Amino acid sequence: MTRVVVQAPMSGGPSTPALAAAVSNAGGLGFLAAGYRTAEQLASDLAETRRLTDQPFGVNVFAHRSAPVDVSAVAEAWGLDPKQARWTDDEYDDKLAVLEADPPAVVSFTFGLPHPLPHLTETWVTVTTVDEARRATGADALVVQGSEAGGHRGTWVDADEREDIGTLALLALVRAAVDVPLVAAGGIADGAGIASVLAAGASRAMLGSAFLLTDEAGTVPAYRSRLAEEGRTGLTRAFSGRLARGIENDWQRKHPGAPIAYPELHYVTSAMRAQARADGDAERFNLWAGQAHSLARTGPAGELVRLLLEEADEALELARRRLDR
Amino acid sequence: MTRVVVQAPMSGGPSTPALAAAVSNAGGLGFLAAGYRTAEQLASDLAETRRLTDQPFGVNVFAHRSAPVDVSAVAEAWGLDPKQARWTDDEYDDKLAVLEADPPAVVSFTFGLPHPLPHLTETWVTVTTVDEARRATGADALVVQGSEAGGHRGTWVDADEREDIGTLALLALVRAAVDVPLVAAGGIADGAGIASVLAAGASRAMLGSAFLLTDEAGTVPAYRSRLAEEGRTGLTRAFSGRLARGIENDWQRKHPGAPIAYPELHYVTSAMRAQARADGDAERFNLWAGQAHSLARTGPAGELVRLLLEEADEALELARRRLDR
Repeated sequence: MTRVVVQAPMSGGPSTPALAAAVSNAGGLGFLAAGYRTAEQLASDLAETRRLTDQPFGVNVFAHRSAPVDVSAVAEAWGLDPKQARWTDDEYDDKLAVLEADPPAVVSFTFGLPHPLPHLTETWVTVTTVDEARRATGADALVVQGSEAGGHRGTWVDADEREDIGTLALLALVRAAVDVPLVAAGGIADGAGIASVLAAGASRAMLGSAFLLTDEAGTVPAYRSRLAEEGRTGLTRAFSGRLARGIENDWQRKHPGAPIAYPELHYVTSAMRAQARADGDAERFNLWAGQAHSLARTGPAGELVRLLLEEADEALELARRRLDR
Repeated sequence: MTRVVVQAPMSGGPSTPALAAAVSNAGGLGFLAAGYRTAEQLASDLAETRRLTDQPFGVNVFAHRSAPVDVSAVAEAWGLDPKQARWTDDEYDDKLAVLEADPPAVVSFTFGLPHPLPHLTETWVTVTTVDEARRATGADALVVQGSEAGGHRGTWVDADEREDIGTLALLALVRAAVDVPLVAAGGIADGAGIASVLAAGASRAMLGSAFLLTDEAGTVPAYRSRLAEEGRTGLTRAFSGRLARGIENDWQRKHPGAPIAYPELHYVTSAMRAQARADGDAERFNLWAGQAHSLARTGPAGELVRLLLEEADEALELARRRLDR
């Protein structure tokens, strides 16, 4: 059975072993987010997920290779501690070693193409342009991330000169350019969205925001409230130094010119964000969300997976009637 | 029969009576673009289209209501004639009178909601946000224009503060907010794209760039060459003073800060653009195109309509197999 519904890895709290396991147990493909976790924490997350499910699941790893940037001036201008700034590779090698020791069904990479591309089991690479798709040689599948997607843009290089391509157009372009299975991500809110990307050429649909309000997600309360409301999202570098889509709040409105400085800025803003989460202050931490976030539903993640599959079935039926009438 | 394939109205040359008629004769719904035509030219286009087809077709009318803007300084800075600047309503009332005298099957509006909303036959209103969709009361259908779309954004008010929402997310959001048939536009390159938006909740799919290379389109040669190549698109106000998506060229790269000044800037740049078209200089006129423009195909428009319907059928079959396996 191909698991058509994929739960997007959401670093920084929302993705949990309980969420990944619930999705996989219901016939979807759950994902752990290794980003910002230590290798040790990843090992513990893996063990916990194995305890909760014997079904396949995936793990996402960051593969950024940007050059270190000095962000002292920015940190001081923003009233934050410049000493927190540091460049790390997010323990890439140690995480790979953990995954080699106990390989999940899928390992996906974001922010670049690792050299060499590890082939523990199945390897997915995130792409946001046709060029990246062509260069992702060796990947077993591509995660095609359209501009609707919440959280960090998966671009291999963060730059001001770029085109943010919508999911529908990007799927068509990538499908025409490469011959490898595609996992569509970005703007998929419900079963109709899943049916839609399957028709557009994807083999699977990856949903992030749609899972943020489920019982098993680690989404904090102040974040949950904003997700459920209608509210404009925007692309910002103000939290991490890398372009990401979140529900617009004071911090991102206040710093429209935040520099390209990942992961240094991520560490500079970490303490502020942790405090804001604890305080329930949704204006000062990242509210990563896709453009259709207001359609997210509450409840157990497993029930959501089953509902999504039912809705996808109905949507394809309806599309068939629309085309044939 | 519902005509699922709709040819987008493309003002400024590409839309012709021959194109609209060919699309409608093949079972699609062709569209004339009344924008930038005089009421007299519209009457003549209508008569010519009637001569070429007895099938239903549509006419698109601009319904902008922005306040006049002084663009003398910009025109002079750009080396263009400031005296060409003028505000017009594009002969709105006279065009409505022409359409009342000889109503086409559908009249669609872009850039706003006319007051009163005319109901000659079937009335469509273009929307780009959930808010616009909710406010479009009285429309028989909404043209839901996602951010992938080429040409002018159909926003009711042009503004820097906005969210450009991708077609897939926007369809989901609008479908959840209003109960009226939806025509999806933006990033639909082929039959798979058509199947995709039908599954996402649209009743019809509107394609613009996909028709730009057909025999009947009025697309000039220098524009045709660029469309067929891969090339980044971007949003710009540098040609018309209103945000529009086109293949990036020198003129739009040179004027990233072009002001909100429609239609004044349109008239200021008109002579330059006409000359560039005549000279085959693709760097100085608007190359409106959606994000999937490089997938556009050549040949007779009627054949394209038939091919699109076949592809849509296959794409739905494939999606069904992907969901069920």
